[in-house]
Amino acid sequence: MDNRPIGVFDSGLGGLTAVRRLEKLLPQERIVYFGDTGRVPYGNRGEDVITRYAAQDCRFLLSQDVKMIIAACGTVSSVAPQVLTSLPVPGFGVVEPTAKAAVAATKNGKIGIIGTAATVKSGSYAKAIAALAPEVTVFGRECPLFVPLVENGWIGEDDAVAALTVERYLQPLKEQGIDTLILGCTHFPLLIPHIRAYLGEGVALISAGDEAAKACATALAEADALADPSQTGETAFYVSDKSQNFAAVAEIFLGRPAAEHIHRVDIDSL
Amino acid sequence: MDNRPIGVFDSGLGGLTAVRRLEKLLPQERIVYFGDTGRVPYGNRGEDVITRYAAQDCRFLLSQDVKMIIAACGTVSSVAPQVLTSLPVPGFGVVEPTAKAAVAATKNGKIGIIGTAATVKSGSYAKAIAALAPEVTVFGRECPLFVPLVENGWIGEDDAVAALTVERYLQPLKEQGIDTLILGCTHFPLLIPHIRAYLGEGVALISAGDEAAKACATALAEADALADPSQTGETAFYVSDKSQNFAAVAEIFLGRPAAEHIHRVDIDSL
Repeated sequence: MDNRPIGVFDSGLGGLTAVRRLEKLLPQERIVYFGDTGRVPYGNRGEDVITRYAAQDCRFLLSQDVKMIIAACGTVSSVAPQVLTSLPVPGFGVVEPTAKAAVAATKNGKIGIIGTAATVKSGSYAKAIAALAPEVTVFGRECPLFVPLVENGWIGEDDAVAALTVERYLQPLKEQGIDTLILGCTHFPLLIPHIRAYLGEGVALISAGDEAAKACATALAEADALADPSQTGETAFYVSDKSQNFAAVAEIFLGRPAAEHIHRVDIDSL
Repeated sequence: MDNRPIGVFDSGLGGLTAVRRLEKLLPQERIVYFGDTGRVPYGNRGEDVITRYAAQDCRFLLSQDVKMIIAACGTVSSVAPQVLTSLPVPGFGVVEPTAKAAVAATKNGKIGIIGTAATVKSGSYAKAIAALAPEVTVFGRECPLFVPLVENGWIGEDDAVAALTVERYLQPLKEQGIDTLILGCTHFPLLIPHIRAYLGEGVALISAGDEAAKACATALAEADALADPSQTGETAFYVSDKSQNFAAVAEIFLGRPAAEHIHRVDIDSL
C-alpha cells in the first residue's frame, strides 16, 4: 500500500482526459496534475526544448512526493521517453500502453496514428507497434490544427470547421483502410464525435490518455502500491500560467469545474 | 546618422511581415529580428508571463546594440506596452501607429479590430482610437484560430477551412457595417485574400506590421538616425527554437528563404 499521490503531467490541459479516466478507475487515489499551460504547445518545438521542459515538469511532480509519474502527453512520450525512465520513481508515457491496445484491437493489421507534428515525425508508435507485431502496418498523420480547434471549443457536432478539418486530415487514413486509429494526443478525444462520423463505426478508436490511465492502475496493483481503499481520492491541479480561457478549457477536458483547486507554479525556475 | 541596426521582435515569425516592409522602406538599414519561437504563442497567456517574455526579448535585442526596438507583436504591444517605454533606446509597438492609420482610413466611423484573445481583451486599440477620435466606434473580435491556420499553411485561396473560419469570425463585424478593419496580429496579412473575399473591396484593411514599419522609418528620419544611405542593409534572424517546419513558415512570412541566416538564442537565460 502506498498513499502518496500519482503525478500526471501534460504540455497543457489535454492530459486531464487521462486524469478523468484515472479518477474513475482508482477513486481512492490522490492525483497531482501539472499542465504546462505557460509553455504549451510542445508539439511543434525542437527535441532539446521538449526534453528540457519534460525534465522540469517531472521535477515539479517529484517535489510533490508522487509515487509514479505519467506523461499524459503524446509529444513527451514520443520525443523524450528517456526522461521518464531515469526518474527515482516509476514513470511512463502514453506510447507503450496505447500501442499495445491498438495491436490487440486491429483485425486487418492496418493501424492509423494521429498526433502532433513532433509525435508523428518521431515514429514512436510505429516502433512500439513493430516491436509487438511486426506484421502490422502503421499509417501516421500529423494533425496540428486539432489542438487549437479543441482549445477554442470548436468541437460541437454541428461544427463545420471541425468536420472539414477532420475530413482533410483523416482522408488518407480512410483510403488506406485502417480498422484502428490511435488518438496519439490527449486533446483528440474531444473530437471523437467528428472522427467517428467520418470514419464510421467499423474503426476502433484508441485514446492515449485512457490507455495510460489503465496502465497506471495495472502497474500500481502489480507493485502493491495502490492507496488505502478507504482513502477518498482528490486531485490537485497545478499550471504554469492561468490564461484567460483556462478554466473553461479545463472544464471541457475534465467534464467538471476545477477552477477553485488550481495553483500556479513557476516552472521555468525548476 | 546612426548605423546601428533596428531591432524587431515578435512572439514567433509573424513579425517578419513587418521586417519585409521595413526592408523595402529602408534598404540601407541593418535589422536584427528575434522570434520567440520557443515560447510562441503569447496571445493566450497571462499578462505577467507576456510582460516577462517581452522584457527578455528586449534584453536580447539590446545585447545586439540596436538603436530602436519595434515590438511587431500585437499581444506585447497591447498587454505590456510599459516594457517598450522603459528602454534605453526608443521602443514602440504596433498599436499607436496602427490606430492612427485606421482613424485616417475610416469614413463611416466604424472600425473593426481582430487579433489574439489577449490583444482584443486588452482593449488597447479601442483606447488608442478613442484618444485620437472619440466619435469612432470600435468593434473587437478575437480570432485565435487564425495563427495556427497561417502557421500550418492552410491559407490558399481555395482553402475551405480558411474561408469558413474567416467567415465565422468576421460575420459580426460585417453585420456592424465596419468600413475599416485592423489586422492586429502580424500573422493575419497572410489571410488577406480570404478576408478581402468575405468583406469586399469597400473595407480598408490596415496591417499592424506595415504601420509599425512605416512609423519606425518616420521616427528614425525625424531623429536623424537613419543609416548611411550608401550602406547595404541586411537582416539577421534569431529564434529561441528551431522547430521542424520553422524554415517553411519563415518563408511564408518573409516571401523569400531565410534559412541560412538563422541563429538560435537561449532566451530563458536572459
